[in-house]
Order: sequence, then structure tokens, then C-alpha cells
Amino acid sequence: MIKRSAMETRLTPIGIISSCYKEKFGIPRQAGLVTDARATLELLPPFNRPEAVQGLESFSHIWLLFIFHQSAGQGWNPTVRPPRLGGNRRMGVFATRSPFRPNSIGLSAVELEKIECKGSRILLHLKGVDVMDGTPVVDIKPYLPYADCIATAGGGFADEAPGRLLEVCFTPEIAETVRVLEENNYPGLQQLIIDTLRADPRPAYYQRQPQKNSFGMKIHDFDLRWQFSEGRIVVSGLVKESSSG
Amino acid sequence: MIKRSAMETRLTPIGIISSCYKEKFGIPRQAGLVTDARATLELLPPFNRPEAVQGLESFSHIWLLFIFHQSAGQGWNPTVRPPRLGGNRRMGVFATRSPFRPNSIGLSAVELEKIECKGSRILLHLKGVDVMDGTPVVDIKPYLPYADCIATAGGGFADEAPGRLLEVCFTPEIAETVRVLEENNYPGLQQLIIDTLRADPRPAYYQRQPQKNSFGMKIHDFDLRWQFSEGRIVVSGLVKESSSG
Repeated sequence: MIKRSAMETRLTPIGIISSCYKEKFGIPRQAGLVTDARATLELLPPFNRPEAVQGLESFSHIWLLFIFHQSAGQGWNPTVRPPRLGGNRRMGVFATRSPFRPNSIGLSAVELEKIECKGSRILLHLKGVDVMDGTPVVDIKPYLPYADCIATAGGGFADEAPGRLLEVCFTPEIAETVRVLEENNYPGLQQLIIDTLRADPRPAYYQRQPQKNSFGMKIHDFDLRWQFSEGRIVVSGLVKESSSG
Repeated sequence: MIKRSAMETRLTPIGIISSCYKEKFGIPRQAGLVTDARATLELLPPFNRPEAVQGLESFSHIWLLFIFHQSAGQGWNPTVRPPRLGGNRRMGVFATRSPFRPNSIGLSAVELEKIECKGSRILLHLKGVDVMDGTPVVDIKPYLPYADCIATAGGGFADEAPGRLLEVCFTPEIAETVRVLEENNYPGLQQLIIDTLRADPRPAYYQRQPQKNSFGMKIHDFDLRWQFSEGRIVVSGLVKESSSG
């Protein structure tokens, strides 16, 4: 009855994300958890027309539908181990937001700070993102509070935002580095680092391996390093990547 | 830098919707507006495994990502005329939830009433839908209140649910027919009809053509007919479709 050919659909990216998160490790587990997590979405031709986003600036938040390009094509399993459950209980893939899904589409509600039109370049400036640099976006939709914000919804095993947040400290040298960087192109950098790290980005299996104590991730143009010390996170390194000069 | 081949993604339906809405005309303009709008999502092989939905029943609402199969392949325009604005102002396609989009993906938050596993059949019973019968679904995600419900979001030109709702009346004969049907397989039928019609499903151009006064749509197995009389909607027909016996 249903034609298979009519059912398969090909997606074309309408834009590409430039994100402060340069690799998968460390990305917040949902959108909105790290307010200062910034990204820019640049529309690709032929979608880079100011008319296509006309009226969008009146919405405070938008939906991004995007491709999990790092996990696309890697197959799927009927069950996954959500980090929320400590990585030791299996849940159905459709009961999670895992990137390893039958169709590798991600969904995030992010804050739309502004839309910038520079000649043929259309740039959407976003906050509160949970998407990686280079992510292909396949759709933008306005966030409609009356339909999308369901205050009575029950969130099952993930009913509340991740609860246990760690304390994050900076060495005096790094604190000074961050202060200078905030005044030069990286506003909100300290809060971005705190909010990203305090949720403890380690996979659950590392949390059971206290012998590994030192971690790193790329954020903006920096190699960020931190250690665990008496239950706290101590930021111990913030070095500009050599590849970026 | 970005490989085109790596960017194109093919979607495979994971399930098909059986909805009370059998045609495009009359479908609510967003999910959640008509509580008694019911649908069933049946998972297709190889996705029809109970493990794949394990834990999903603990969520009250889920996201459906689906294909606008009636408008897919019909192209897109940078601007559309949202019904919300009376059909006479153009907005950027990305500032609307129009089905005529570069990638024909729809997004709806619907109520998950229950999950039924009957042998190899996995059926998700849904309420508050705005999707048509036969719609291919490409993903299910749990609705996560802490990330998805943004109470502070500003909804631009569509900030509130459609405001002007019409009064809906039934002739005595139809009221009796509805009462009997509600006791036999169609619970909530009266409220479904009222909530579907009171938002005035006519396209804006009909609203400017008062000479056309009689309308019809298919709902469940019925041909539903109504007329406009002194600003009210009067339900004047509810006949079982001959094709369904």
C-alpha cells in the first residue's frame, strides 16, 4: 500500500554551525543548560536569502533540526545506556535523545540572539547550544510557546535537569587569563567554562575510574584542561591552540 | 572543506501514523490544540521491537519528527503566507511551521497515552495530534520539560494560541448520532468535532468569500459537514463513509 520510494526522503543541509564546542567531549547534554554556549549558524546557498528568515527575529528561541554528523552512518541499537542513568541501565533508543538513532537527527531549542545579514551571508547568532562545530542544520523552526512549552509534561527518568553540579575553581593565573580574554572577543568565557564543567562531562565509565584525573577539551580556540581535586574541578590549563596561530 | 556526500542524509520511516484526520483540510495548525485528536503510530520493521521503546512509557509527551508527505517534493519558496496573519502577509519560511520547506520535516509534541505491544506490532497511542493519516514518522524523542519547555520564550507574531474561537452547535439529530457513536468506539467525538471546527479550519481566502458557506472534511470514518450561520458553526452532517462499509 505504501510505496517505499515515496517514503524515503533525502535531506539537504540549509546551514552549517560554527560552535564554541569543537569536539564531542564536553558538549552539554541538552540545549539551554549552558547559557553562554555560543554558536553561529550560517545559511548555505540557495537558502542564504534575507527573505527566508524574515520575521524570525521576533522569536526569542528557535528549534534547530540537525544531523548528528559524527555518529551518522554508525548504525543503531534498539537500546542505549543514557548517561543520566549512570551508564549502567539500558533504555530504548526512542526513550532517549542519544545521537545513535535510526535517523541521525538532533533537535535543540536554542536562544536566537540576533540575525546578521552581511551581503550574501546570513548569520544566526545563537546561545545555549549543545551542538558541535561543523554540524549540518536541516531545518529552523520558530519556538511556539503555546504549542511547544508543555508545563504539565512529565519527564520520566529524566524529569529534572541534571542535579548534582560540581564546584569549579580556577588557578590565579588561569583566572587572570580568562579575565583578559573576556575583554577581548570572548565575553562570558568564565561562565561558559564553569557551566560546561560543573555538569561533569566525563562519560560514566570514567566516573568509576578515579585513577584518571586529568581531562581536556577544545573550547573556542583553546585547549582547556582540568583536574579533580577533593570533589572539586580545578581548571589548570587554557592555552590557545597552536593550529589557530 | 565540507564533503557534499557526507552532508546528504537519507531518512527511513520508523513508523506510520493512523490519524483521525484523513485529509489535510481541517487538521489543527499545531499539536496540542485539540486534546481529543487521536492517532496511533505503528512501528515498521526493523524498528518494531519492544526494547526500542523501553522506558518511553514513563514520559507523558513525545516529539514526533515526521515527513510532510503531501507537500514533500513540491519545492519551497523563501516566503510563505501564514494563516495566523490572515494569509495576506509574507513571512520567511524559517519563521513559520509551514509544510512547504526546504526539508519537509514536521515537528509535533503530542501526548503519549499508552504503548501497546501485540506480538510483533508496537502501537503508540497518541492524543493532541496535528498529523494526517498515513504520515511517515522518522523519529520519536522523549519530551524533556527541563530543556524543551522554555517558559520565558517570546513567540513573535504567533505568541499566543489562536485567539478567536467560534461557537459550534449541533442539530438535534447529529447530537444524538454523536452520543451513540461516543458509546461505540469513538470516545470524545463531540469534543473532537468542537475543538477542530471552532478554530475555523478555512484557509484565509475562504474567510473573505462569505458566499461559500458549506464545508466538509473526513474525520475518523465519517464525512463531517458544517455551515456558517450568524457567526456560529452549525454541524449539519456526520455520515459514515461508504468506502468503509
